[in-house]
Amino acid sequence: MECPLCITHRDNIVWQDEYCRVITGDDPAYPGYYRVVWGKHVAEMSDLDVCARRHFMDVVFAVESSLRALMNPDKINLASLGNKVPHLHWHVIARFADDRHFPESIWGREQRSALMRNAPDHAALAARISAELA
Amino acid sequence: MECPLCITHRDNIVWQDEYCRVITGDDPAYPGYYRVVWGKHVAEMSDLDVCARRHFMDVVFAVESSLRALMNPDKINLASLGNKVPHLHWHVIARFADDRHFPESIWGREQRSALMRNAPDHAALAARISAELA
Repeated sequence: MECPLCITHRDNIVWQDEYCRVITGDDPAYPGYYRVVWGKHVAEMSDLDVCARRHFMDVVFAVESSLRALMNPDKINLASLGNKVPHLHWHVIARFADDRHFPESIWGREQRSALMRNAPDHAALAARISAELA
Repeated sequence: MECPLCITHRDNIVWQDEYCRVITGDDPAYPGYYRVVWGKHVAEMSDLDVCARRHFMDVVFAVESSLRALMNPDKINLASLGNKVPHLHWHVIARFADDRHFPESIWGREQRSALMRNAPDHAALAARISAELA
């Protein structure tokens, strides 16, 4: 089966450089949910060299900082799992005390109906990510 | 309520330096489950300065590499959530295709009874973490 993260969909890209891309999480219950996807098909962070790993994490933390600035969440969740799709990607999720699963992980048991929030403006998010990395 | 991660329990420490400690996950279904806990009570990675953040991640990736070498897991899962305990800590989990939740996250729905495995020898794990960081 072809790896779904080896295929780039232009319409879900918020930010990108030559190594990785930030894409929308596409979960209406989580408007502050983004994925940072490594360009090459690699399974584990320890498969990357130190420079690549640091750059990847710098982008993850830039998304975190940007979501904090734009959405003021109660918590940020970060995860690299890849059990189903072993192509390196980080989940960066702005969490709110009244969201669907809080304080559980978004992969845990639902706690309540999701309160709808607006996603951040993607041009503003992209600009902030670039600024954080500059 | 006092933060449980501000209290250090000497008996669950596998490795430590002046900034952080690696402790056992204490889940019998997950013998390759460790937590890397930052010493100071800080909630988010973007609250740390760049040097601290890089050191913290270097330790997380050293635990990942060491678990891969000692346990040969099918996947490594990394996560910093902290919704319940907002004191920075990384979950580093060696996952196996026959473990309790695979391919779901360990916070998801159980898939089967856990097949029991041995945890790595902690002296060997500590030595490998130090070697990875050297």
